[in-house]
Amino acid sequence: MEMFAKDLSALAQSPHRQWLTTLPQQLNSFLQSPHGEFKKWQRVLKQLPQLDTDHASLGDTVQVGLPEQASDSDRARMNGLLKQLQPWRKGPFDLFGLFIDTEWRSDWKWQRVQPHLNDLSGKQVLDVGCGSGYHLWRMLEAGASEVWGIDPGELFLTQFQAIKQMMPPSIGDRAHYFPVGIEHMPSLQSFDTVFSMGVLYHRRSPLEFLQQLKSLLRSGGQLILETIVVEGDETTVMMPGERYAQMRNVWFLPSAKALCVWLERLGFKNPEIVDHNPTTLDEQRSTEWMTGESLKDFLDPNDPKKTIEGYQAPIRAIVKATI
Amino acid sequence: MEMFAKDLSALAQSPHRQWLTTLPQQLNSFLQSPHGEFKKWQRVLKQLPQLDTDHASLGDTVQVGLPEQASDSDRARMNGLLKQLQPWRKGPFDLFGLFIDTEWRSDWKWQRVQPHLNDLSGKQVLDVGCGSGYHLWRMLEAGASEVWGIDPGELFLTQFQAIKQMMPPSIGDRAHYFPVGIEHMPSLQSFDTVFSMGVLYHRRSPLEFLQQLKSLLRSGGQLILETIVVEGDETTVMMPGERYAQMRNVWFLPSAKALCVWLERLGFKNPEIVDHNPTTLDEQRSTEWMTGESLKDFLDPNDPKKTIEGYQAPIRAIVKATI
Amino acid sequence: MEMFAKDLSALAQSPHRQWLTTLPQQLNSFLQSPHGEFKKWQRVLKQLPQLDTDHASLGDTVQVGLPEQASDSDRARMNGLLKQLQPWRKGPFDLFGLFIDTEWRSDWKWQRVQPHLNDLSGKQVLDVGCGSGYHLWRMLEAGASEVWGIDPGELFLTQFQAIKQMMPPSIGDRAHYFPVGIEHMPSLQSFDTVFSMGVLYHRRSPLEFLQQLKSLLRSGGQLILETIVVEGDETTVMMPGERYAQMRNVWFLPSAKALCVWLERLGFKNPEIVDHNPTTLDEQRSTEWMTGESLKDFLDPNDPKKTIEGYQAPIRAIVKATI
Amino acid sequence: MEMFAKDLSALAQSPHRQWLTTLPQQLNSFLQSPHGEFKKWQRVLKQLPQLDTDHASLGDTVQVGLPEQASDSDRARMNGLLKQLQPWRKGPFDLFGLFIDTEWRSDWKWQRVQPHLNDLSGKQVLDVGCGSGYHLWRMLEAGASEVWGIDPGELFLTQFQAIKQMMPPSIGDRAHYFPVGIEHMPSLQSFDTVFSMGVLYHRRSPLEFLQQLKSLLRSGGQLILETIVVEGDETTVMMPGERYAQMRNVWFLPSAKALCVWLERLGFKNPEIVDHNPTTLDEQRSTEWMTGESLKDFLDPNDPKKTIEGYQAPIRAIVKATI
Repeated sequence: MEMFAKDLSALAQSPHRQWLTTLPQQLNSFLQSPHGEFKKWQRVLKQLPQLDTDHASLGDTVQVGLPEQASDSDRARMNGLLKQLQPWRKGPFDLFGLFIDTEWRSDWKWQRVQPHLNDLSGKQVLDVGCGSGYHLWRMLEAGASEVWGIDPGELFLTQFQAIKQMMPPSIGDRAHYFPVGIEHMPSLQSFDTVFSMGVLYHRRSPLEFLQQLKSLLRSGGQLILETIVVEGDETTVMMPGERYAQMRNVWFLPSAKALCVWLERLGFKNPEIVDHNPTTLDEQRSTEWMTGESLKDFLDPNDPKKTIEGYQAPIRAIVKATI
Repeated sequence: MEMFAKDLSALAQSPHRQWLTTLPQQLNSFLQSPHGEFKKWQRVLKQLPQLDTDHASLGDTVQVGLPEQASDSDRARMNGLLKQLQPWRKGPFDLFGLFIDTEWRSDWKWQRVQPHLNDLSGKQVLDVGCGSGYHLWRMLEAGASEVWGIDPGELFLTQFQAIKQMMPPSIGDRAHYFPVGIEHMPSLQSFDTVFSMGVLYHRRSPLEFLQQLKSLLRSGGQLILETIVVEGDETTVMMPGERYAQMRNVWFLPSAKALCVWLERLGFKNPEIVDHNPTTLDEQRSTEWMTGESLKDFLDPNDPKKTIEGYQAPIRAIVKATI
Repeated sequence: MEMFAKDLSALAQSPHRQWLTTLPQQLNSFLQSPHGEFKKWQRVLKQLPQLDTDHASLGDTVQVGLPEQASDSDRARMNGLLKQLQPWRKGPFDLFGLFIDTEWRSDWKWQRVQPHLNDLSGKQVLDVGCGSGYHLWRMLEAGASEVWGIDPGELFLTQFQAIKQMMPPSIGDRAHYFPVGIEHMPSLQSFDTVFSMGVLYHRRSPLEFLQQLKSLLRSGGQLILETIVVEGDETTVMMPGERYAQMRNVWFLPSAKALCVWLERLGFKNPEIVDHNPTTLDEQRSTEWMTGESLKDFLDPNDPKKTIEGYQAPIRAIVKATI
Repeated sequence: MEMFAKDLSALAQSPHRQWLTTLPQQLNSFLQSPHGEFKKWQRVLKQLPQLDTDHASLGDTVQVGLPEQASDSDRARMNGLLKQLQPWRKGPFDLFGLFIDTEWRSDWKWQRVQPHLNDLSGKQVLDVGCGSGYHLWRMLEAGASEVWGIDPGELFLTQFQAIKQMMPPSIGDRAHYFPVGIEHMPSLQSFDTVFSMGVLYHRRSPLEFLQQLKSLLRSGGQLILETIVVEGDETTVMMPGERYAQMRNVWFLPSAKALCVWLERLGFKNPEIVDHNPTTLDEQRSTEWMTGESLKDFLDPNDPKKTIEGYQAPIRAIVKATI
C-alpha cells in the first residue's frame, strides 16, 4: 500500500477517517490482483521525465509546468509514454506545453456545473467516478481544501498519478484518488460537496447509489449529480436493452423530473435541474488521445436525435440538491 | 433451531440444499432476537386443541378437518386463540368448521394466476413473501411435490404453523416456511417455479430483487410475479412520496409493460402480462379477522380511482416469464 | 453437497443441529477445492462391485458381508480397487472375505479403551480425527445410537465411504463422517461421549484443542483422549524439534500426569489415566495395505526405547474425564 | 477515532501500514463499547493543567517538565487527578516535580534488558503489553525512531495519554499506543525489535503468541521476551491451578530452557537467556500510587520461595532471540 501512504495519512487526519475501517483492505485487494496492464502502466509513470515546477494553472485546460521548463525531447518522451495510457477521456490537460486533447471537453461540463455550486472554499469534496481526475483539479481551483476521487479504473488512476506527480506539492498533496467503488464506503457524513457525474445510468440499483451518496454528505452538504436522462415527465423512466449508444451496462434512464422525484423520496432537499442538454458532437469526440469510437459513432447517422439502436439520443442533466 | 429441524432435514435432501450454507445462521439470528410478541404467539400455538384428522381439502377455502371432528368448545377455543394472531391477511381457511375470513380473497388471486402456470405436478416451488402461506397449500393442491415459503414476518410464520400443525402429515410435511428474506439466499438455480406476489413495490432495488428471483430458478423454470403497477407504456415508472395508499415503503411502481422491459433486460424470456386489474373493494377488505383499515380506507372517498394521497389507485398485474 | 445429503438431513434432526450454522459452508469449500486425488478416489468408490448384504459384525475385525455373498472375481476387483486407497491405517476390516490388514491393530486400542467407557447405549458419539472410521463402527457395536466422525483427510473419507456403502443401511445410516477439522465447530454441548485418539500432539495449541473438545460435550459427558506422552511428573512437557519419530508437526508431548493437570485446569472432572503403554512393533507395522515405513523405521535400530532422532520412544496414554 | 488521528496518520507513513487493514475497525469497536470507567478517565485527562515544557528526560525516572515550570497548586491538582487513574503499575515518572511511585520498579527491568538489545538507533520498535508505556519512553531514549505500544487496557491507555500530552511534541509524536490485543494484527514483518514483557504466562496458547510475535519482526529483527518461568530443564513446564500468586488466568510456566526450546521449534535463531532472577519485594510492591496488594501478599508469609498457593515463587527470565 506504499503507493497510497500519503493519501491514507491525510485521510487519518481528515473528517473522513472512518473510511479507514474499510478502505485499506480494499486497496490491498486491489493491489494484490490488479488489472493485467496495471504494472505496465505503472512502469510508464516511472519513466516520465522528472520535471520540477511550481507553476500550475487549474483553468479550463488544467496546466502543469511551463513550456520553457521542459525540452522538446522531454515533451516527445512524455507524449510517447502518456499515449500508452490511452484512452484519455476527461480533460483537457497541458503538461509543460504538451496538450492532451481528451475525448471529452470536460471544461464545458464544468462551466455548466460551476455556477450552481455551493462555495467550495476550504471545503472537503468527493468526486464519485472521477475518471482521470480532471474535475478534482477544478474543484481545487474553486477553493476546495482537499479533494477526494474514487473510480475503480486502474488506467484512470495511472493518468491521475501522472498529472499529480508533476503538480507542485502544495496542490498535488491535496488531491487524492482511491481505485475503489462506492459500495463499501461507510456512512461518512463528512463531505461538504459530493459530485457524481456520469455514473448513475450504470447502476442496476440507482436508489441504492443515491442513498450511498447521501450518506457521505454532512448535514447541509450539496450533491451535484450529472447523468443521462430522457425527455419526459415525473413518471418517465426508460430502460434500454443490452446496449444504449453502444454502451453495455446501462440501466435506468429517468427523465430529469423523475430523477428529482427519486431524490425527494430519499430525503434530499430542493432537487433542482440546473442544466439539461443533449451532448454535442463537439463535446465528446475522438481525438489523437482517444482514437476509438466516440459519440458520433453511437448515434444514428441519419438522425442524430437517435442512438444507433434507435433510442432517444443522450441528454445530460445536472441536478443539484442538499441534505 | 429445533422448530425448523424437520424442515432443515427435508432441505438437506432437496435440490436446494446449498441453501444450508446461509439459512441456519439466519434462523439462529432470528430465534435469538425475534419480534417482541413472538413468544406470546408461539404460546398460542401450544394451547391450540390437538385435533387429529386425515381430512384436508386445499381448494378455494383451504380446509383442514371436518366440523364433526371437533367440538363446539374446541372451535370456541380455536377462535379465541387464533384471533390473537391477527391480522390474518391471506386466506380464507376453514379449520374444523371454524371459518377464517381473511382480509384478502387470496383465492381470487389464485384463480387469475392458475391458468397460466406451468404444470406443478411433482415440482419444487418457492413463494417469496408467502404471508400466512395460503398459496403454498394451493400449490400443493396443484400437484407440487414440495413447497417452500419465505417471509420475514414472525406473525405470518405463526399463522402458517397453526395451519400446518393441524394438517395431515402427508400434506403438512411437504410445506416449509422460513422466516427470512431473499437477500442472503445463494443462487440455488433449483426451483421449478418461483412466485412473488405483492413484494416488488416494497423494494428500493427492484432489479436486484428480480435478479435474485432469477437466480433461484432452474434453467427453464417459471417466474410468477404479481405486483402493483400503474397505467402507462414501456417508459412509465411512478415513484410515490412517503406513502402510497397509506403504505410506507413503496418505491417503484412500473407500468406492466415497463415491468416486462425490466424482465427482458435481465434475461428472462417471454415475459407476458397475464392479468391486469384494479383490486376491488370486495377482494381486499376488513373482516372479523382483520379489523384494521383496508383498501376502502386507502382510496379517495370521492374517487375510487385515486388513492387517498391522490395517486392512481392500485392496479395489480400478474406477469409470467421463464428463464 | 449431494454426497452429504443424508448426513446433513440426519444432523438437522439430531441434537447437534447447531452445527449446520458452520458445517455446510465448510463442506462446500472442501468440495470446491479438494485434494488433487480426491476425484480419482471417488471414482474408485463407484467402481466397487454392488454387493448386497444384511450381514455385518462390528467386532475386532469389522466385518461386512459373508464370503459366500461375493465371488472370487468380486473380491479380486475389490482388492485391486481398495489398494488404490492406500495407505490404510486404522482397521482391520473384512469385506465379503477380503481382509484389510491395516497398519494399526486398532482393535487392540479399542480393547484398552472400552472397559473405561460410560455406557454408549443409545448415545450420541463424536470421534475427532477418526481416520478410516474403524472406531465409529466399534462405537455402534457398543450400542451408540449415532456416531459422528470428523477428519480432514480426503483419503480417509473415501475409505470410510467404501465401507459404509457396503454396510446394511440399518447400520450405515447411523455413521456419519465429515471431512472437516474441529476448528470451526460451534459449542454444541450435545455429545454424550467425545473421542480424540492420536490428535493432541499435532496441535500447536493443545489447550485450545482440549477446550474445543469440552465445548462439544453435554453436561456430564465423557472425554476419551488418547495421545503420545512422555515419562515424567506433573511438570514434564517435552517439545521435540522439527521431527519426532519421523513425524513433522509434533508439538507438545506432556507426561500423562501433566495432561491430567491441563484437563483439570480447563474444568474437566476426575481426569484419570486408564492406560499408559509404549506402542509395540506388533501394533503398528507395515502391511500389504500400508507398504510405507512404520513404527519400526521410526525407532532407533539399536535402542527401541528411543526414536530415530534420539527422543524417548512414543508411549501412548489413554485418559478419561468428564465435564 | 479522532483520538487516534495522528497515530493512524503516522502509521500510514510507517513500514507498518498494512496494520491499517485491521486496526481502525478494532479502534472503532473499542470506542463504541469501552470499559465503563473510560469516559471518566478521559475527563480526568481534560482537566489536567496545560503545562508547556520542552524539557523531558527519559532516564530511570521518566521525567517531563521541571518543577519550576509548574506551581504547587498545579502539582496538587495533577496529584489529585492522576490518583484517579490508579493503579499505576509500570514506572516511575516525574511530572513537573510530581513523583509517581509505581508498583513496579520498571527501571530495574530495563537495566537488565538494555545491555542485550540490538542497537535501537533509528529503529521501529513494538512493545506488546506495554501497560502505562514506561518502556516506550526508554526505547526512545535508546534512540528508537518510533515506538508502538499495544495493550487492551483502557486505564493504561489513559495513563499513557496523560504522560504523552505533557511531553514535548518532538518526543511525544513518536510514541503511539493502541488499545488492542495482538490477535488480529497482520503479519507485518516490519519491526526491528519486538518486546513482550509479562504477557506469555497469560496465554492459553503460548506458541500461537510467540508465532505472532515472530510474524511482526522483519527478517533479522530481535525479540525480547520477559516472562515468569520455573526452575527446571528443557522438559519442565508447570501449569498452576485457578490461581498463581493470586493471579487468575495463568497458564503455561515453562522453565527458561523449555522456553528456548519453544522458540527454536518456531524458527527463532539463537534464543538466549540473558537474565533469570526471582522478583524481589523491593521491585514490586504497594505504593501510594498502587495501594492494593502486591508481591509480598502473593507469597507464602513463612517461605518467600513459595507463592501463597504453594507453588514455586515467580522467577522472571529475559530471553532474546532473532529471526
